[in-house]
Amino acid sequence: MHCDGIMTDKPIQDFYPDEIAICYGCGRHNVDGLHIQTFWNGEEGVAHFMPRPHHTAFPGIVYGGLLASLVDCHSIGTAIAATYQADGRAPDTEPEVTYVTGNLNVTYLQPTPMGIELTLRARIKELHPRKAIVTCSIYAGDKETVRAELVAVRVKSRATMG
Amino acid sequence: MHCDGIMTDKPIQDFYPDEIAICYGCGRHNVDGLHIQTFWNGEEGVAHFMPRPHHTAFPGIVYGGLLASLVDCHSIGTAIAATYQADGRAPDTEPEVTYVTGNLNVTYLQPTPMGIELTLRARIKELHPRKAIVTCSIYAGDKETVRAELVAVRVKSRATMG
Repeated sequence: MHCDGIMTDKPIQDFYPDEIAICYGCGRHNVDGLHIQTFWNGEEGVAHFMPRPHHTAFPGIVYGGLLASLVDCHSIGTAIAATYQADGRAPDTEPEVTYVTGNLNVTYLQPTPMGIELTLRARIKELHPRKAIVTCSIYAGDKETVRAELVAVRVKSRATMG
Repeated sequence: MHCDGIMTDKPIQDFYPDEIAICYGCGRHNVDGLHIQTFWNGEEGVAHFMPRPHHTAFPGIVYGGLLASLVDCHSIGTAIAATYQADGRAPDTEPEVTYVTGNLNVTYLQPTPMGIELTLRARIKELHPRKAIVTCSIYAGDKETVRAELVAVRVKSRATMG
C-alpha cells in the first residue's frame, strides 16, 4: 500500500482519535494549546512553529520549555507516522499506533531567537516493536539551535491511560 | 553571612532583575506565563505547581512538555540559589548569578495525573565555576512521576544574550 500522499497532505495529528486529541502541545481539540503539526514526507517529520510574543526566556530569546514541548509532540508524531509507514498502511487504519514519551533529552546548542518561524526536523534512529528512538533538531533559519533525542514507548491506547 | 532566611521566605525568581523576569516559565513580569516559584531551603529547591485544565496530554494525564518546563525553570532557580549560598551571600547582592540551560534530560517514570498539585524537588549534583548539574523529581502526592537532570551553564547576564 502506498500512503505517502496521505501523510504529506495532512499532519499526523489530524488522525489522532477525537477523544485523545486534547494534548496541550498538539491536540486539535485543545483550544488553548500550541497546535503543533507534524508532516511526514516519507523520510522525516517536518513541523513549523512561530513562537508567540509571550514565549520568551529572556529578551529576544525563545523559552527552552517551549522548545522541549515542540520536540516532544513532533517526535511522537514522527514515530507514529513512521510506524504506519513501516507497517505499510495509512494512518487512518486500525489498529491505532500510539506512543508516549519515555525519555526526552534536549541539548540547547545556542539561543533560539524570537521573531523567526522555527523548523523542526525529526528522524527515526531506531524502530522496535515496543519503542522508537527519534532524533529531532530545531532550526531558526539555517541555524540549528536545538538537538534532541526522544525515546517513544508504544502503548495500546492513550485514552485508557488516565 | 547567613542568608537562609532570605532564601526561604521569597522564591529565588523574585530576585531576578526586572529586565529578564519575562520568562514564560518563571518570569514574574510575564502575564501569560506559568509563574513557577523555587523556594530554596538550604539543601534543596522546592516548588509547587497546579496544572491548569488545558495542560493535558490525554484524558486525566498532565502534558509532558509542561513537566519539562517546570523542571527547566525550577532546576535553573535551584542552581542560582545554591550558588549564592555557596558564595556565602544573599541573592540580592552583586554580581548577579545567572545560568542558562545547556541540557535537559527528562525521564517520565509513569503518567502524571491531573487534578493534583505537583511538588518539585531539585538538588545540586555538581557545582563548578562555570556549570552546575541539577537533579529534579516531580511528585504527584507521594508518587514520583518524573526524574530529570539538567546541565546549567553559567553566563554573565541573560539580558544581553538576545
